[in-house]
Amino acid sequence: MERIHFQQELETLKERLLAMGGLAEDRVRTAVQGLVERDSDLIDEVLNGDTPVNELHIEIDDLCLKLLALHSPMAADLRAVMAAIKINSDLERVGDMAVNIGEAARRYISHPPVKKLMDIPRMATTAQRMLREALDSYVRGDIPLAQRVLDQDDELDTLKTQVFRELLTYMLQDTATIEPALDLILISRHLERIGDHATNIAEDVIFMVSGRDVRHQAADAH
Amino acid sequence: MERIHFQQELETLKERLLAMGGLAEDRVRTAVQGLVERDSDLIDEVLNGDTPVNELHIEIDDLCLKLLALHSPMAADLRAVMAAIKINSDLERVGDMAVNIGEAARRYISHPPVKKLMDIPRMATTAQRMLREALDSYVRGDIPLAQRVLDQDDELDTLKTQVFRELLTYMLQDTATIEPALDLILISRHLERIGDHATNIAEDVIFMVSGRDVRHQAADAH
Repeated sequence: MERIHFQQELETLKERLLAMGGLAEDRVRTAVQGLVERDSDLIDEVLNGDTPVNELHIEIDDLCLKLLALHSPMAADLRAVMAAIKINSDLERVGDMAVNIGEAARRYISHPPVKKLMDIPRMATTAQRMLREALDSYVRGDIPLAQRVLDQDDELDTLKTQVFRELLTYMLQDTATIEPALDLILISRHLERIGDHATNIAEDVIFMVSGRDVRHQAADAH
Repeated sequence: MERIHFQQELETLKERLLAMGGLAEDRVRTAVQGLVERDSDLIDEVLNGDTPVNELHIEIDDLCLKLLALHSPMAADLRAVMAAIKINSDLERVGDMAVNIGEAARRYISHPPVKKLMDIPRMATTAQRMLREALDSYVRGDIPLAQRVLDQDDELDTLKTQVFRELLTYMLQDTATIEPALDLILISRHLERIGDHATNIAEDVIFMVSGRDVRHQAADAH
């Protein structure tokens, strides 16, 4: 009975995390759409719409605290709550990234555009997909899916490097592109960080499900 | 007896977090020193020295998990462990920032310097102080000190904006400065993020001590 009650509350927690992830992802998508379509209304929507994500952040932390205090979960259940605490922080910062992208996009559209946006929309699609799959892997406890998220991080890194090189070329050729190109570089870094948050979530999922720590393996190998 | 045992382990946890914070701060200091002195040995030391912080990250997560599983702490004790879980993530990412600063510094010193480094060393000093005070406020449960950390974030933001404006002026005047100036802009952003992590820690401390949530107040006000 007690355990059934815990499982129900854990399901609620997962559902709220998915809601928060969906919201954070929407905000990133809207910010990038505002950039692509040079639509300041969309950008303002992102800049003024931080409250729901922040409210969910506080609500989910409270849920985690209550789950720990009332049920004193053990083993995999405890790891699931601990993962939720961390995922909640990651998602809140994805929401912050949407605001950062919005701020850079607002400055960007005040200048003539830098040719095309290159691979920035593709970076956004990849980062959003990584985030969605990372959350799905949490809800389902799906290690292969979490692993696929980790594998996509290199793709994002390659795109970031390409975008940087192209923008540098434009800046060197034409000083009028320096200011807008700087904003695109910052946006590509924010998108990269969204991928980093997805990676963190995927690592937490692998630890939660298997009890095996995959963090820092790549870092320690070189 | 049980509670004394918990308090002892909580003290160990705090001591490990302080050690990790000290290590992360050292790495940031070394990276910035490498930049200022154009010393590639110092920079390589940072780029190759990630392992101890990462090991502490895993060790502290384990400590938190064990504290929760063995003692099922309540109220302020539970909040203290939950804060430690989050602070641990923040410190690990400060370690990542040191690597990012090191990577940008390595590229930077391969070019002729951009006049002076402006307020970047000052940004570093501020960010390091914020981090140190945030951790002290956690260990002592010191709300006024945590509040002082929050107050310093604006200072860091002002310095970042000044650095950005100065660098933009150089880039527009002389295209030879574009590449190194870009790296300085990235470094100033990494330092800003270290301040953000210190801010997150300070907010967690205020919640831990008072049970009062100060997060998102500024964000929701505008």
